Amino acid sequence: MKKTTFLINCPDKKGIIATVTNFILAKKGNITYIDQYVDREVKEFFMRLVCEFDSDEEKLARFKESFNNDVAKNYGMHLEMYDTDKKPKMALFVSKYDHCLYDILGRHASGELHVKIPIIISNHNDLKPIADAFNIPFKHIPVTKDNKEQAEAEQLAILREHKIDFVVLARYMQILSPDFVNHFPNKIINIHHSFLPAFPGAKPYHSAYERGVKIIGATSHYVTSDLDEGPIIEQEIVRVSHVHNVQDFILKGRDLEKIVLSRGIKHHIQHKVLVYNNKTVIFS
Amino acid sequence: MKKTTFLINCPDKKGIIATVTNFILAKKGNITYIDQYVDREVKEFFMRLVCEFDSDEEKLARFKESFNNDVAKNYGMHLEMYDTDKKPKMALFVSKYDHCLYDILGRHASGELHVKIPIIISNHNDLKPIADAFNIPFKHIPVTKDNKEQAEAEQLAILREHKIDFVVLARYMQILSPDFVNHFPNKIINIHHSFLPAFPGAKPYHSAYERGVKIIGATSHYVTSDLDEGPIIEQEIVRVSHVHNVQDFILKGRDLEKIVLSRGIKHHIQHKVLVYNNKTVIFS
Amino acid sequence: MKKTTFLINCPDKKGIIATVTNFILAKKGNITYIDQYVDREVKEFFMRLVCEFDSDEEKLARFKESFNNDVAKNYGMHLEMYDTDKKPKMALFVSKYDHCLYDILGRHASGELHVKIPIIISNHNDLKPIADAFNIPFKHIPVTKDNKEQAEAEQLAILREHKIDFVVLARYMQILSPDFVNHFPNKIINIHHSFLPAFPGAKPYHSAYERGVKIIGATSHYVTSDLDEGPIIEQEIVRVSHVHNVQDFILKGRDLEKIVLSRGIKHHIQHKVLVYNNKTVIFS
Amino acid sequence: MKKTTFLINCPDKKGIIATVTNFILAKKGNITYIDQYVDREVKEFFMRLVCEFDSDEEKLARFKESFNNDVAKNYGMHLEMYDTDKKPKMALFVSKYDHCLYDILGRHASGELHVKIPIIISNHNDLKPIADAFNIPFKHIPVTKDNKEQAEAEQLAILREHKIDFVVLARYMQILSPDFVNHFPNKIINIHHSFLPAFPGAKPYHSAYERGVKIIGATSHYVTSDLDEGPIIEQEIVRVSHVHNVQDFILKGRDLEKIVLSRGIKHHIQHKVLVYNNKTVIFS
Repeated sequence: MKKTTFLINCPDKKGIIATVTNFILAKKGNITYIDQYVDREVKEFFMRLVCEFDSDEEKLARFKESFNNDVAKNYGMHLEMYDTDKKPKMALFVSKYDHCLYDILGRHASGELHVKIPIIISNHNDLKPIADAFNIPFKHIPVTKDNKEQAEAEQLAILREHKIDFVVLARYMQILSPDFVNHFPNKIINIHHSFLPAFPGAKPYHSAYERGVKIIGATSHYVTSDLDEGPIIEQEIVRVSHVHNVQDFILKGRDLEKIVLSRGIKHHIQHKVLVYNNKTVIFS
Repeated sequence: MKKTTFLINCPDKKGIIATVTNFILAKKGNITYIDQYVDREVKEFFMRLVCEFDSDEEKLARFKESFNNDVAKNYGMHLEMYDTDKKPKMALFVSKYDHCLYDILGRHASGELHVKIPIIISNHNDLKPIADAFNIPFKHIPVTKDNKEQAEAEQLAILREHKIDFVVLARYMQILSPDFVNHFPNKIINIHHSFLPAFPGAKPYHSAYERGVKIIGATSHYVTSDLDEGPIIEQEIVRVSHVHNVQDFILKGRDLEKIVLSRGIKHHIQHKVLVYNNKTVIFS
Repeated sequence: MKKTTFLINCPDKKGIIATVTNFILAKKGNITYIDQYVDREVKEFFMRLVCEFDSDEEKLARFKESFNNDVAKNYGMHLEMYDTDKKPKMALFVSKYDHCLYDILGRHASGELHVKIPIIISNHNDLKPIADAFNIPFKHIPVTKDNKEQAEAEQLAILREHKIDFVVLARYMQILSPDFVNHFPNKIINIHHSFLPAFPGAKPYHSAYERGVKIIGATSHYVTSDLDEGPIIEQEIVRVSHVHNVQDFILKGRDLEKIVLSRGIKHHIQHKVLVYNNKTVIFS
Repeated sequence: MKKTTFLINCPDKKGIIATVTNFILAKKGNITYIDQYVDREVKEFFMRLVCEFDSDEEKLARFKESFNNDVAKNYGMHLEMYDTDKKPKMALFVSKYDHCLYDILGRHASGELHVKIPIIISNHNDLKPIADAFNIPFKHIPVTKDNKEQAEAEQLAILREHKIDFVVLARYMQILSPDFVNHFPNKIINIHHSFLPAFPGAKPYHSAYERGVKIIGATSHYVTSDLDEGPIIEQEIVRVSHVHNVQDFILKGRDLEKIVLSRGIKHHIQHKVLVYNNKTVIFS
């Protein structure tokens, strides 16, 4: 048996759940996970299914094609189908900050992240030793004001070569061009070190400190062409007080960045995220 | 014995703590609480003391005068001295939302808030029955675009008449003029139903919902002439997800508003808040 | 149209969701809410449905009977059906602590709790003025070591007289007998002032203080014949530190008790709780 | 100038703060950090000071000796003095779980933990590659029912040889004997994967799952001769629900274990912890 994960959304109609579940049962599929949600404001239906089916490649292909033609098209479904057990390929982009990189590579080495990490790309060379220690290929691609287009072209070529499924910006300090982003729609996860929409842009800990907030946060989100405006995947906070200076904010924030980024990565890897109206539905 | 609470801040200098504590000991005062903090960025010293002293009115007055002249002036201290056990007089401003009012009056009736509540002022009449049920005088002062100055004059007269120490805006929906605010500098506590500085102004829950945040919050702060920009006293958050619509945000948010406002009120009542650089030091 | 809430659990089988949804559609019902969960460890299926149906009383009764006979029985379903918009009748039991009572009555008066409160029962008379202020009948039934059986008989008679659906122990300090509890299986909600299973029984704040925990909590749960052992509905925590003494624990704990009890009450009122294996499934 | 950290506790008396601060000022020391707390229940005074003093070794030694003789002894102080900038030597004990090890080594390599890690000791060989990747000596000392005394003797010899200041049990699965513990009083930090005192001992996630709690936690504490009973340093929680099975509890718990253990380590490294009455005072 082979597991397939379905992510579905479409305009809500009566009977979708029954139609989908009946279809799978009729094809002798076995549903091992089902969760759905209807946004009644915009009347949109969202569903995540995991079902087991005959692992014979041809039969599975026909099943998926049949689902697409007989069900998905009828309902005007946006449909994504994934081989549940297949590890996605994740590329990491880093600059000089190492804390998120260490955290991700540690989790990965420890079996916690169900991904392959074929490549780490960086605009600096500083973190190469870490990639080496974890036996992951590292590519240094410097980025300047003048070479941005070529740098991104080189990055995209590498991502294509490694068949990368999604990209994680782990405190990568360069802003990606809209063109780059369009190659990976809702496939680039960034960690922003504030509780968006508070303190977008640069130096959010400094701004938070000056505002005298009693809580700081971090946000993981999909990158869109608008800086820090993309759909939010996960957020987390920690309390601060007057005894904490900017450096304390930064240190406390690092733990948030790590946890929020890794949670976002896990949701994505597990195909638990649907994007709609610049927001995310995160299945349980 | 009578307890006095001291709130102090001044430019940091060597020996302040020793000087202050020595002074009190020399005058036969007994320190029952002492907490201090130095902001090393701006080199400012903050201290909160509670000390017992002879309850004889004349002796106590001389002690306080002496402290002011012999210690405070030498260090250029901003100094506040309060009779610790005396209940401050708190006025409540409300409009139509009743949840914060019920919460505050319930806590007060239950002995949890060490204040007197001489008056509730409202621009509507809807909440009068609640004031009546809790035996608190209620004054209806309508506010329109054209009568704002007179309305505020009437409000200020009432606050003066009742010798109000501080004002709490419990989801009061009118914006106070800078003139009004100047009568009560750092003495007007407002509850804003978002996690500032995210979503200032009107309809923050709607904006939070559209942004697709995974966390909503509430903020209590002192009112300044800049809307939602005053020094933050307390913040709290709660997690939300795609299953929550705007109405759910509002309902969850109400619990936050209640808890954040009451915590802010308690800190203020207990003379635990010092304002500096548009931020607050909250003693433990 | 009239809304009916269905709470269902049964041994998991293929096709339950399709069968249930097909049935409702065939009867011209309109599903406005559906959430389900399968516990794969014990292979049990749980579902909550809200569906609109013709408000004609006879037709609705036939629909519900038909669902029971044609669907529920086939699957061996534990089935509960509720008129969604009908307010359940909730009785409050109190002793001398007033904070939970004020909190519940304030929320109720404010429209937040979709219940009727026909009666407040207490083993003391202290809180009668609060019941009076909120216009709710109050019955004082003293409980001693010797009169417990008669006292409970009197309580049960009153609950029967008022057709009470469920009981909330709002810091009620008497332990109910197993006999009493059996009259209201999973219909008595208690608030315990600790994070169960830590610190069951008496004086949990004192025990927490002595253990030197850095976090305290509160737990709402259904009462069973084993003290503090019943299925947990909701829990919440707050951080504490060495600067907090027992009295501080108690004061901080009060806010937790209020919020945890009210959340538990809301889940119950909304028919969002299913009990299974001494644990709860709380639908979103 | 050289910084010294003082940790002090003694029976509370009038004038301690003044005496201590006056003493330091008189010796031309410069206080850069001061925090104190009085437990008024047991009348015990706690203080943490960081002060700069002449870095000349002889002068500093005389200053410390003088403080001990002229101040500490007068007040019956328990006194600890540390070279603030000197990195303590921390040994890690591990078994097969690697998540805490990766987390600690990543933070250390990233400069976040101000310690030296001279040795990792394990009762298994599985984690040796991780120690190698981070260039840290690894010693495999198997422990069986019959060799416990010799194994511990070997461990203690290694700790002595490396002049280890404190030990961290990073999901080390062996129970240390009271004799071992007595060599490192309040110097062995353990991570227990529950919110103590709930679920002590083995398989706490399984027990938490069966109890149906809505919150799970982790606790870091100093090891004493009573299993899981030592003074708590830090705790943290995360919410769970019916959708989470034991495996989910374990995975969510891992993030808690990492954060709680690292926070405990940081408090200890920074000499911010005083133990008293089996509880901890954690300076800010």
